Amino acid sequence: MMDTISTRDDSDLLHARYGRETGPLPTNEIIDTLLAHRSCRAFRPDPLPDGVLETLIAAGQSAATSSNLQTWSVVAVEDAERREALFHIGDSQKQILESPLVLCFLADLSRIAAIADRIPKPREALDYLESFLVAAIDSSLAAQNVCVAAESMGYGTCYLGELRQYPEKLAALLDLPPMTMVTFGLCIGVPDETRPAFIKPRLPQSSVLHRETYKPAQALAPVGDYEVVLDEFNRMARNGQPLWGLRCASRVEKPDSLKGREHLAGALRRMGFPLK
Amino acid sequence: MMDTISTRDDSDLLHARYGRETGPLPTNEIIDTLLAHRSCRAFRPDPLPDGVLETLIAAGQSAATSSNLQTWSVVAVEDAERREALFHIGDSQKQILESPLVLCFLADLSRIAAIADRIPKPREALDYLESFLVAAIDSSLAAQNVCVAAESMGYGTCYLGELRQYPEKLAALLDLPPMTMVTFGLCIGVPDETRPAFIKPRLPQSSVLHRETYKPAQALAPVGDYEVVLDEFNRMARNGQPLWGLRCASRVEKPDSLKGREHLAGALRRMGFPLK
Repeated sequence: MMDTISTRDDSDLLHARYGRETGPLPTNEIIDTLLAHRSCRAFRPDPLPDGVLETLIAAGQSAATSSNLQTWSVVAVEDAERREALFHIGDSQKQILESPLVLCFLADLSRIAAIADRIPKPREALDYLESFLVAAIDSSLAAQNVCVAAESMGYGTCYLGELRQYPEKLAALLDLPPMTMVTFGLCIGVPDETRPAFIKPRLPQSSVLHRETYKPAQALAPVGDYEVVLDEFNRMARNGQPLWGLRCASRVEKPDSLKGREHLAGALRRMGFPLK
Repeated sequence: MMDTISTRDDSDLLHARYGRETGPLPTNEIIDTLLAHRSCRAFRPDPLPDGVLETLIAAGQSAATSSNLQTWSVVAVEDAERREALFHIGDSQKQILESPLVLCFLADLSRIAAIADRIPKPREALDYLESFLVAAIDSSLAAQNVCVAAESMGYGTCYLGELRQYPEKLAALLDLPPMTMVTFGLCIGVPDETRPAFIKPRLPQSSVLHRETYKPAQALAPVGDYEVVLDEFNRMARNGQPLWGLRCASRVEKPDSLKGREHLAGALRRMGFPLK
């Protein structure tokens, strides 16, 4: 596949991603699809055709998984009443009602726990934070493949971290067994082009990419410039928001800035994750 | 993009992924790239051409990030001595020495902590498990985009969860500030085709994909069949391994099955993540 690389100027996508001119970079059709990501919050009601969900899950299962333990699962919610319940569990974001499919990704240690229980030995390692983290990362890698696959087919996607606000209510709604937890949701559907989404600018690469060692001053230097870029974007997209630094600060100020998620550790312990 | 979908029979890729015949599914070139993933553990020493790393990071930054907080960073290690140190910190897997680039992905709350500290208010929410999890998930979504972008260019990739075994040693090696942690590494380079990697079969979809609610019996039913499939694969690939269930059981048996990672929670607390 090496010969498919072309050094062409994808200045539109890169310009949108950084809000500034960047040099030309080597790219290809797949990378262009990645660069073009935007969160979609306006969907048409059309259901996904037969087979598409199975394709998306095959893509998700193709992602790497730690030691092939496959410690993730997914509950696909299409039922309108159940989506309405999800809507009320989270921040009542309307894309949950609009999109025909909400995938609830699970960190799932229950499957290997049940498998391990077939032999008369303990399964103590599952009680550790590390095992929960393995499952959370597995679910994230799989979800991102699902997201890329869906967008490659022209669907819109939107992650829902808000589903972590009431993990036990959600477990009841989805009949989850102990040792499983919804890490996040992912709305998937046909974008409503009358309410388009835009590519959101990110921090300059110098803030995120460090070579050999981490340089805190390098991470912070471009923040002021980024705030200007993001403010311009928010005006264009008519998102009334404070400057990025102020918004970050208010998001992390108090425990209840987490809107219920400050109780996550306690809920997880009750759900079968001791987090030792 | 909807019209690029073709319902063709990608039976080779799907057959390899599940080790069994599957029905034809709608797919496209991008999804085929996802389905074709395999972990690469044998690299040629060729360095990546100029610009490729920047392309990969632009793809990573294009992934969704919770509330646009961008709580991840990456340290790109190319230096041979530093890669050798990584090799000794982890499980001494030779791909760390062979691949020209090891990306160390970070859950990074240090940047928004420093930004929040510019105003005279607390930043108490960062002390909670939820904030650590946001950062770990952000780093995972970004890494998977980097992985897909690299493979679309013909490079091989290999995740390194083993870098969580000694998080404080690794923080010293990479000059990491408090409130950052390496979630995993990712080796990237030109695959050595004389030592090829294979697509590893995963659990049948019925074990992983649940509709509307989770069914534990459905999750477990296909495990026996999967063990046969994976055993056939391991014989073909000359990986001598016990059956999948036994291997899972031994991986979760005792705290020290985690090979040091059972101390992760304590290390994280010392590194600025109270995990409340």
